[in-house]
Amino acid sequence: MRAATYIGNSTVEVTTRDPRAPGAGEVQIEVAYTGICGTDLHVLHGSMDARVTLPAVLGHEMSGRIAVVGEGVEDWAVGDPVTVMPLDWCGRCPACRAGHQHICQNLDFIGIDSPGSLQGRWNVPAHVLVRLPESLRLDHAALVEPVAVSVHDVRRSELRPGEKAVVIGGGPIGVLIATTARHLGADVVVVELDAGRRRMIQELGFEVLDPSAQDQVEWVEEWTGGAGADVVFEVSGAAAAVLGATALAKVRGRLVVVAIHPQPRPVDLQRVFWRELTIVGARVYERADFETAVDMLAAGAVPAEQLITAILPLAETADAFDKLASGQAMKVLIDCQAGAE
Amino acid sequence: MRAATYIGNSTVEVTTRDPRAPGAGEVQIEVAYTGICGTDLHVLHGSMDARVTLPAVLGHEMSGRIAVVGEGVEDWAVGDPVTVMPLDWCGRCPACRAGHQHICQNLDFIGIDSPGSLQGRWNVPAHVLVRLPESLRLDHAALVEPVAVSVHDVRRSELRPGEKAVVIGGGPIGVLIATTARHLGADVVVVELDAGRRRMIQELGFEVLDPSAQDQVEWVEEWTGGAGADVVFEVSGAAAAVLGATALAKVRGRLVVVAIHPQPRPVDLQRVFWRELTIVGARVYERADFETAVDMLAAGAVPAEQLITAILPLAETADAFDKLASGQAMKVLIDCQAGAE
Repeated sequence: MRAATYIGNSTVEVTTRDPRAPGAGEVQIEVAYTGICGTDLHVLHGSMDARVTLPAVLGHEMSGRIAVVGEGVEDWAVGDPVTVMPLDWCGRCPACRAGHQHICQNLDFIGIDSPGSLQGRWNVPAHVLVRLPESLRLDHAALVEPVAVSVHDVRRSELRPGEKAVVIGGGPIGVLIATTARHLGADVVVVELDAGRRRMIQELGFEVLDPSAQDQVEWVEEWTGGAGADVVFEVSGAAAAVLGATALAKVRGRLVVVAIHPQPRPVDLQRVFWRELTIVGARVYERADFETAVDMLAAGAVPAEQLITAILPLAETADAFDKLASGQAMKVLIDCQAGAE
Repeated sequence: MRAATYIGNSTVEVTTRDPRAPGAGEVQIEVAYTGICGTDLHVLHGSMDARVTLPAVLGHEMSGRIAVVGEGVEDWAVGDPVTVMPLDWCGRCPACRAGHQHICQNLDFIGIDSPGSLQGRWNVPAHVLVRLPESLRLDHAALVEPVAVSVHDVRRSELRPGEKAVVIGGGPIGVLIATTARHLGADVVVVELDAGRRRMIQELGFEVLDPSAQDQVEWVEEWTGGAGADVVFEVSGAAAAVLGATALAKVRGRLVVVAIHPQPRPVDLQRVFWRELTIVGARVYERADFETAVDMLAAGAVPAEQLITAILPLAETADAFDKLASGQAMKVLIDCQAGAE
């Protein structure tokens, strides 16, 4: 079979290797599609070398079918369409004991801390499997993981139908948050600097703001009758966006930190105090989020066709990363099906 | 009667003036005691000149008895012991309409935006009155307002009995938050740089950390069995404290922003994301907080005797401010009783 591996120095190499038989409690999946995301790009660019073991098989947004069922695995059969919730927790740390296994203090994020799905065949513990309906196309199903991120972010925000939400940053996760918020019955505006992205987001039916051309505080004030937004999602990762985000929220509004901010960011705590704002961190997802994401995709509530910019074969994984790095692609998938043999 | 007024240029002047009869819907209070606080000090030092109208009578932590009842005021009688919840809201803005009148978008904070209680007789709208039990000493009752702040802060934190809380900053509000948290059944540690304050806080029976001598992250890790604190209260106003606070909280822990931070502060949003922390702003109080504060003081749950460093006559208000500015006093009260004539 073939696997795309990160070998350091911003380099991805596609190699041939023998598949390993799944161990007890594991299944082997024939991977259909693997999406690549901003985190994979961070890994490729060396920012997470402390976490990965080289050569590293990346990939954690995927779909496929079970090819081999390991010893002791029940409830799963060869041919079942599946995706994976790529979290393996310890079950013993204080976070796990408190019921927050998804952010376990010793979390193994499969695809970063252990091998991922950018390969033809992939062995995973059966407990990370998530069942897919036969009606869901496997290319669309590769979006379940990022949709689950957005479902989790929206759930953490406690957004309610009829509320107004601002999404700062119109990349893939920003657009999925906007989609999930709209699906829930909220009114949404997306703030995005890039004109190409703005055009695409507009085509998806969202209101879009260009913060370099419009005064976003004034716009939100008018949109909300002087109240401010119920929820602001910070998905851009930009320092300026963090500093400005608090000014967009209503009294007792909620600000969700979705993006990764490697450096501490100046936050207007005076505004947090003055308006009694709540800032919440949102990381990965729980099983309920994955199940909601599957349902949303199966119901056609996610514009998967428009979001998938390109599907490239496993052999062209390096090109796929270049395409993603250009900033113009929304979602790039790798077709892993030819890599199974 | 006499009044202490801020006349600009860091100066307080005590002057004699004729009392005004209370208008319709107002009562006139013979003020017994007025506490002065950090906010009053900020006003005196000119930081809030944009909000105050000179000459300004400060003071919003008080106790007294009703002296005159204005036209149309029911339920109140001459001689009733009272304090005041010094918030006058518009009732029409989005925050008021959403039920958050205490942080009304057009809030009149009585004692800053309009005249306060550093005078012998004080007219206020009857709706801001809070009844005091006869059993509560009026000097102790001047602490109701800051105790209500602490009750509100603890309520915003959603602290539960048995949880562990870190209070960063052991000034008057920090000590009251620690008191309220302990009263609720939580375990508390106070982090304080000043040795004099640490000694006093220890005498009140609290665990105290000197962050310049101890590694507070390590201490909290050990205290909480590797989990981190359930709640962290940021009461110091220091940039370094904000940056360090996120490291003390457990997965899904809560950080309450109590202090005023005039400049944006660097916040470790990576940690907020990683541990799914919640940061909440907490400002002033609601009526329920005031009522809880009265109950706590009446029940002896607040060490009022130890917290009141000094009581000075109205004529010595300027000295009282100096005492507070020295950083060594906890609570300084002004005895306004001689100022009524």
